[in-house]
Amino acid sequence: MKIGIIGGTGDIGEGLALRVSDKHEIILGSRDPAKAVESADKIKNTLKERGIDGNCRGTTNEDAAKAGDMVVISLPFQHVAPTLAGINPDCFKDKIVISPVNPMVRKNGCFLYCPPDEGSAALAIKKMLPESCKLVTAFNNIAARKWSMLDCVLDYTVAVTSDDTDAKMQVMALAQQISKLQPVDAGGLELAGIVESLTPLTINIAQNNKLKDLSIYMR
Amino acid sequence: MKIGIIGGTGDIGEGLALRVSDKHEIILGSRDPAKAVESADKIKNTLKERGIDGNCRGTTNEDAAKAGDMVVISLPFQHVAPTLAGINPDCFKDKIVISPVNPMVRKNGCFLYCPPDEGSAALAIKKMLPESCKLVTAFNNIAARKWSMLDCVLDYTVAVTSDDTDAKMQVMALAQQISKLQPVDAGGLELAGIVESLTPLTINIAQNNKLKDLSIYMR
Repeated sequence: MKIGIIGGTGDIGEGLALRVSDKHEIILGSRDPAKAVESADKIKNTLKERGIDGNCRGTTNEDAAKAGDMVVISLPFQHVAPTLAGINPDCFKDKIVISPVNPMVRKNGCFLYCPPDEGSAALAIKKMLPESCKLVTAFNNIAARKWSMLDCVLDYTVAVTSDDTDAKMQVMALAQQISKLQPVDAGGLELAGIVESLTPLTINIAQNNKLKDLSIYMR
Repeated sequence: MKIGIIGGTGDIGEGLALRVSDKHEIILGSRDPAKAVESADKIKNTLKERGIDGNCRGTTNEDAAKAGDMVVISLPFQHVAPTLAGINPDCFKDKIVISPVNPMVRKNGCFLYCPPDEGSAALAIKKMLPESCKLVTAFNNIAARKWSMLDCVLDYTVAVTSDDTDAKMQVMALAQQISKLQPVDAGGLELAGIVESLTPLTINIAQNNKLKDLSIYMR
């Protein structure tokens, strides 16, 4: 499968490329394609040192969206609308689009969930994409730094939401291939807001309790 | 310490009495005090069979609130306002009040978080209590059935919120005495909504994935 990542030079893009580019083709996009090429080269080198042949390249955000069978939007929420506005909507047609986006603000040193009027980043992003897109939220709650550390076991629960059952299953199958992630069906997109809000909660808890890179496991 | 529990015949009251009435005096309240007395007797018998001397009694909700040094409000959200309206506010004066309340509705077989206009049950309950009360949210996310099963190890994270740091520390110390619960400081009351919303999320996930009595552990 080809996975295009918009904002692919961030932690999620880098982590996905490190962890699944032996099984899938990863196309990292960036508004600065030179930076994406550099990121892809770094990742391939890291993998090569371990004898792994990573299938990964860097390009523009539009090219990444166009090339991917699945497209991940790995951007801070406030950058999503302007970035998508610069990409031909046909690049997304009929595709599964993954949002790991968590809108939050910092207030008095504490992180608050700050969803748009639609109720969640997911519901807002759905409106920005062609109707034929199957939007899925996933990978929202995994501490960013751990993602990109290949030796770090990710034994967390990935709560996946979507209004398209088949798309949800495909993304759960992808998550299942990554470290020890435990994907679970968390329901329709109307549940995405709760999943997104877990990230500011865990960041605050890490901060208040001197814990590090906290994530969630359900049992 | 004396812990009064409003709605004490529910899972949380029963569970707390089973798990800490060897260390604290537990006063179970109910709108039907005979039912609370029956509950307390059942709990004491269960403990006695294991050689544990439980300090636990049943009474009215008002008496439980009056007797407790700490008071737990263990009611469905829609019952909180009418129940508190029937209790003399002086019973709560200067006390720590614990809310494990999660407002939710069921829609098409799925549970949605349904907070009041204040943003969370906690912020609404704060307004119903005397100003001298120190409101703390805790024990929101533990699957009800597991609470009341004494042999069930509770190895979960308890996200505690309050605007009163000392009260928060006292409730965290109480949680620390219960099974293997891991209390964490989750911030001020403005964060309570996220913690409350975790419960409908975990109920849905349990339901959708054929898991049982799901709760949350952060690591």
